[in-house]
Amino acid sequence: MLSIRKIFSKSRSLEDGIFFGAVEKILGFSPKNIDFYKKAFTHRSSNILDEGGNPMNYERLEFLGDAMLSAVIAAHLFNEVPTGDEGYLTKMRSKIVSREHLNELGKDLNLVQLVESKVPVQHFGDNIHGNIFEALVGAIYLDKGYDFCKEFIYKKVIVPYVDIARLEGKVISYKSLVIEWCQKEKRQFHYDIFEDNGINGERLFGVKLSIDEKVIAKARASSKKKAEEKASQRAYFAFQEKIDKK
Amino acid sequence: MLSIRKIFSKSRSLEDGIFFGAVEKILGFSPKNIDFYKKAFTHRSSNILDEGGNPMNYERLEFLGDAMLSAVIAAHLFNEVPTGDEGYLTKMRSKIVSREHLNELGKDLNLVQLVESKVPVQHFGDNIHGNIFEALVGAIYLDKGYDFCKEFIYKKVIVPYVDIARLEGKVISYKSLVIEWCQKEKRQFHYDIFEDNGINGERLFGVKLSIDEKVIAKARASSKKKAEEKASQRAYFAFQEKIDKK
Repeated sequence: MLSIRKIFSKSRSLEDGIFFGAVEKILGFSPKNIDFYKKAFTHRSSNILDEGGNPMNYERLEFLGDAMLSAVIAAHLFNEVPTGDEGYLTKMRSKIVSREHLNELGKDLNLVQLVESKVPVQHFGDNIHGNIFEALVGAIYLDKGYDFCKEFIYKKVIVPYVDIARLEGKVISYKSLVIEWCQKEKRQFHYDIFEDNGINGERLFGVKLSIDEKVIAKARASSKKKAEEKASQRAYFAFQEKIDKK
Repeated sequence: MLSIRKIFSKSRSLEDGIFFGAVEKILGFSPKNIDFYKKAFTHRSSNILDEGGNPMNYERLEFLGDAMLSAVIAAHLFNEVPTGDEGYLTKMRSKIVSREHLNELGKDLNLVQLVESKVPVQHFGDNIHGNIFEALVGAIYLDKGYDFCKEFIYKKVIVPYVDIARLEGKVISYKSLVIEWCQKEKRQFHYDIFEDNGINGERLFGVKLSIDEKVIAKARASSKKKAEEKASQRAYFAFQEKIDKK
């Protein structure tokens, strides 16, 4: 994959402008000091030094971002699960900030496209996605403070990914929940599956879940099973929201 | 030790007033919602349930406070030591938030005097001091938000206890630094030691450090050696401040 920052390496200001725009799009707000974000997207292989002569890469920001993530998730779980004791809260938090989960998050945001590195990013393995995500959280903290950082974590981590029932292992499959519900309520349902190519030419599967001939949810993932599960989960939450509003 | 909350157990409002005042004194500000602090000072042995029927004790708050402490200390170290890499920052943080260090902190604030417990607090061992301190930090976060919580951690942890040179093991003894400096600069110095009784009748030692017949620093501690070291450290920092201002 060719990095956006590499393509424009000949024109510094054009490159900076594109980088700023790309970061803005990921964040959903304008960065105040873009330098923090440049650092968050710089791999140590670049061998760049900052003004103080210190290595300019994301590793220190990763440490900071990890601490902020842990604090925000701790406070969320504390409020969300009043019955959970200290052991439960600790276990749930480590599931949420697991390496695997953070890598998935970073991948979904396609953070690697912005990475400045001497080595092709593919060589770093999966952890680069989660590491950059943590560094990005650290950069947001420095740039905009705790409350902004917390808001970002809510928008990008907690709302789309933190499903306490699932983390507790209570919900194994959302597809089976949907099927069960449809059978009980005597509704017709079907999953339409189609193949689709992602931005980088990777093979993806799309799924449309219809109930009583009405499309309820759509999803795309790297396997048929994952896409069905994602669509089912979306349908499940859409229904829950409707029930909550009643 | 008889707990303040126990002494007044017959008069609820008097007890509440005294508890509020004692918490206010520790915090250095007025609590908004005293219930968070009541929880922070309640041991599980009390077997109290909150309005939701959940156990009312400090254990969940301890989890939250630990997360906030880690985040604030991470940000402090990040800013304070720009040359430290991720490994260094992680190591330094774990020294600062070590069990031993937190116990010392909680002990110095005499937090146990406020603990509500069915079992005499002496039975819990040393960790009760650190646990209550963490719970208190959690309560402050809930009551007043992150920035307030950060300020409290600066005032009670970072300013009085976090000495990076010492944590790095670079400074073994401040007394030897002071002696070395005095010999090099041809100054006269002496440590005056006197015995002193603390609030609870415990034996304490006071030390006055004079250089060229002028008292430079005073300190009090549970041993002569500790008091001398504390006074030397204060003198060292007082000198450093003078040098920085030049």
